Amino acid sequence: MSPLRAFAKANLESLYRVFTVPEAPDSTLGRIDQAISGDVRGFLQEHVVALERDLVEIEKDFSLSRIPEDPTFVSDYTEFMKEKLVAQSVHTAAPGFIGHMTSAIPYFMLPLARVMIALNQNLVKVETSKAFTPMERQVLAMLHRLVYEGTDSFYDRWIHDSEHALGAFCSGGTVANITALWAARNRLCGPSGDFKGIAQEGLLKALKHLNCEGLAVLVSRRGHYSLGKAADLLGIGRENLVGVDIDENNRINMPRLRERCSELQGEGIRILSLVGIGGTTETGNVDPLDALADLAGELGCHFHVDAAWGGPTLFSATHRHLLKGIERADSVTLDAHKQLYVPMGAGMVVFKDPETLSSIEHHAAYILRKGSKDLGSHTLEGSRPGMAMLVHAGLAIIGRKGYELLMDQGIERARLFADMVEAREDFELVTEPELNILTYRYNPAWLQQAMAAADTETQRQGNEILDQINQHIQKRQREDGKTFVSRTRLAPGRYRGEIITVFRAVLANPLTTGEILESVLDEQCQIAGNSAITAMLDDLRLLLSCAA
Amino acid sequence: MSPLRAFAKANLESLYRVFTVPEAPDSTLGRIDQAISGDVRGFLQEHVVALERDLVEIEKDFSLSRIPEDPTFVSDYTEFMKEKLVAQSVHTAAPGFIGHMTSAIPYFMLPLARVMIALNQNLVKVETSKAFTPMERQVLAMLHRLVYEGTDSFYDRWIHDSEHALGAFCSGGTVANITALWAARNRLCGPSGDFKGIAQEGLLKALKHLNCEGLAVLVSRRGHYSLGKAADLLGIGRENLVGVDIDENNRINMPRLRERCSELQGEGIRILSLVGIGGTTETGNVDPLDALADLAGELGCHFHVDAAWGGPTLFSATHRHLLKGIERADSVTLDAHKQLYVPMGAGMVVFKDPETLSSIEHHAAYILRKGSKDLGSHTLEGSRPGMAMLVHAGLAIIGRKGYELLMDQGIERARLFADMVEAREDFELVTEPELNILTYRYNPAWLQQAMAAADTETQRQGNEILDQINQHIQKRQREDGKTFVSRTRLAPGRYRGEIITVFRAVLANPLTTGEILESVLDEQCQIAGNSAITAMLDDLRLLLSCAA
Repeated sequence: MSPLRAFAKANLESLYRVFTVPEAPDSTLGRIDQAISGDVRGFLQEHVVALERDLVEIEKDFSLSRIPEDPTFVSDYTEFMKEKLVAQSVHTAAPGFIGHMTSAIPYFMLPLARVMIALNQNLVKVETSKAFTPMERQVLAMLHRLVYEGTDSFYDRWIHDSEHALGAFCSGGTVANITALWAARNRLCGPSGDFKGIAQEGLLKALKHLNCEGLAVLVSRRGHYSLGKAADLLGIGRENLVGVDIDENNRINMPRLRERCSELQGEGIRILSLVGIGGTTETGNVDPLDALADLAGELGCHFHVDAAWGGPTLFSATHRHLLKGIERADSVTLDAHKQLYVPMGAGMVVFKDPETLSSIEHHAAYILRKGSKDLGSHTLEGSRPGMAMLVHAGLAIIGRKGYELLMDQGIERARLFADMVEAREDFELVTEPELNILTYRYNPAWLQQAMAAADTETQRQGNEILDQINQHIQKRQREDGKTFVSRTRLAPGRYRGEIITVFRAVLANPLTTGEILESVLDEQCQIAGNSAITAMLDDLRLLLSCAA
Repeated sequence: MSPLRAFAKANLESLYRVFTVPEAPDSTLGRIDQAISGDVRGFLQEHVVALERDLVEIEKDFSLSRIPEDPTFVSDYTEFMKEKLVAQSVHTAAPGFIGHMTSAIPYFMLPLARVMIALNQNLVKVETSKAFTPMERQVLAMLHRLVYEGTDSFYDRWIHDSEHALGAFCSGGTVANITALWAARNRLCGPSGDFKGIAQEGLLKALKHLNCEGLAVLVSRRGHYSLGKAADLLGIGRENLVGVDIDENNRINMPRLRERCSELQGEGIRILSLVGIGGTTETGNVDPLDALADLAGELGCHFHVDAAWGGPTLFSATHRHLLKGIERADSVTLDAHKQLYVPMGAGMVVFKDPETLSSIEHHAAYILRKGSKDLGSHTLEGSRPGMAMLVHAGLAIIGRKGYELLMDQGIERARLFADMVEAREDFELVTEPELNILTYRYNPAWLQQAMAAADTETQRQGNEILDQINQHIQKRQREDGKTFVSRTRLAPGRYRGEIITVFRAVLANPLTTGEILESVLDEQCQIAGNSAITAMLDDLRLLLSCAA
């Protein structure tokens, strides 16, 4: 397009034009704009997960390391982008994509996201965000209320209080979890007497002040990997993020947790926080939050709940009891880009006590002045976009009842899929869905019988080959791009703690029908019939017959 | 609109419809979509910074803490949003908005951003991002090359290497700076002998292993406040983020830095990193990067450059020499949402040595498996959007030459504005622009003369009143919403280290003309004529005449 051609000639007028808004929709840029929107519509209507093309092939289109010297026409770039990037991306919204925590998002999010991007507010301070600041505070208060059910007068008091924050909006659950443990650490090691606090003096002096050998965070073995990052970042060390054994339902083993706490205390380690999980990433189970709250109370430590996935279950009158006890947590992580159906890049942590975030408060001369309403004084991140607007829109447009329906449907759909898996004799349900996540594996009926009769060592060897088979099926299915489940490795009770490879299905997309779920299993059966897998199954048959 | 009304009745069909793409542009949702886009265009064409409305008034529209029970029509919500949110937001793209680091963004970013949002890729792993993974790696390689100018073979070797990363893409410069210091800390305290490394064992044991009393990071007093957050988070403590004195040009005082390093070493503190600034946030000055690299080499410590603002100056053949020495840094922060003119939410840190980020590597069973190309194994954040696409688009469409023009124009415009300030006798230029940022204050000619002749104590009192005057002008100008500069507090050499309030202007918007700059000063003069300020000036006159 001509503005850019001239631009290349260092024509200042053209430079300006690239930065201005086209006056009419039928201008060149206006037309390109509409064409791109049309293409997006087309892409989203296709129900294919991804085109079959190897990543190494795709990399060739992104291998130049030199920044192009001359400008390119917008139209040329969009052609490249459509062919090489959009067509080669993953259709995360496809109803057959049930492998990860991405879903279809409501269509109204798209024009609203465009408004958000066009306004380009910076939420770090009021001067670059104005109404976005109270709007974000309102979103935090709404989620706070969903979790803690405070009174009107509580929220009237705190919602817009410039010295306090009911939570922090962030780019995702990882930053939310880090923020929660950061605030907990700084509160435990706050200023007292001559000690100016850990924020000022650092961890070494804080531990000396507390007269202990280290800080520990305890969570079940199903804890999200972001907690390990937090332990690393905060100087606590991954060894002091203690992964506690789980029961047969993937929930933290409370007696074992008590033991571990005593052991740590015996070693001079101070318990910083217990972490409960409100929907584990791999299996969707919920820890006994009330029991955890009791123990945290006894220990006098922080109690954090990672409800990044399962938090919105609170919308459901039928299922909110599953999260009973969450209202006793000191902090709770929620991801809006998961089950609030907002586009990627929106996490939150809310704190029961509006004072807690003060432990990480910071200021600067040119912004975040004391007493200002600048949101940046209580966040890990600095400059941030106005993503809270999309959460605000979701809460208003879908409403509590709409989200309730989504949550209920997801849980019912997971039950349906579990029933389908159980109804097929060549599959084995590994973890029952409590929320809307379940795991299973391919394991032909004859093999299940033979394995049950085999000795422990043969079972172990059999599981190793089954792992390869399930891994092969998952990869092949992903590459074929029609449907998709993810895979992980778990140690279910029935195999004496042996770690096996399983398929993981996340049933959060409201467009996923029963038919589509059947087709996921059909495709897996079909792949299992290919020569690579039948050869592996022959090996297994031989192994079992020798052992017998 | 009807789908949502039915939705409220828990009609499943309607629930599906909210999540599907309207088949035709003339459907209800299609029409709303187009109307919203039209409104955005209108808003962006208006050149008003913000409507005059008090924040406390605005808060009333965002004060309900209860999530709405029932769904709302999209059309009703967008009406609310236009009136209460969009109209009350800050027009950060306005050419008269020269107070912060937000600018107009090229219009082509809007349709492309919509594509990005619609695709909703999650860059944490290949399974949810496919082509976006090599694309982001390419962007990191391109910025790495801009800074380090490696050879083709270097980039061919590393660009798509699954075990390594040339940098980390993140939500902004704060996370980039934290990531840089995190990697530096973990590298210094890496595994050796029986010590399993700080990531595993924590900071206390790391310091014991290094046999030191603490770690220090040194940066000039102009260092960004994110470095303080990093020192807090990483357990180093803000006291060990040592703010070194600056010279009269706001650059780190090298002799003083050497002294501080010796002092710290004498106290048993290990120097973790020196930080050089490539464009200070408040004044836009660049530290002597070559001298810093020399000293870091002598000390054997990490050398980080925070070029969040000034990094893109490297595009300019004329001005890139200002950043001489940056190519010797171990890590460099760059913000794409600043001078790469990408919407909010795009920062990066690049590392000279592709091994450095391995010190913060992490894995999980269900994603980020060892050997995978998943980007999430080397980032602080977990799930992340595909913002790198907009950087990719900017680099391709604007090109090196386009960015060069933008950088050159910004620096020339800052010089022009400095000349305008100096030409007006009632203003005082406080810091000369080196890149495209400058500070100045209102200080009437008669007062400048009288202050010069006054004693130190009278000068101090005079400056206090001048601070109030400048603060008043800045607030009033912001509230009037026609033009905007920010303010900060600095201690320029000419006032013997006394801290004064100054206006801060950031000249990055290519649409800001000389006329607009004159109008910024005109407006300030006009505000200075109001009764509140003339009363304060009368006080000053009295003070000076008494002192004389």
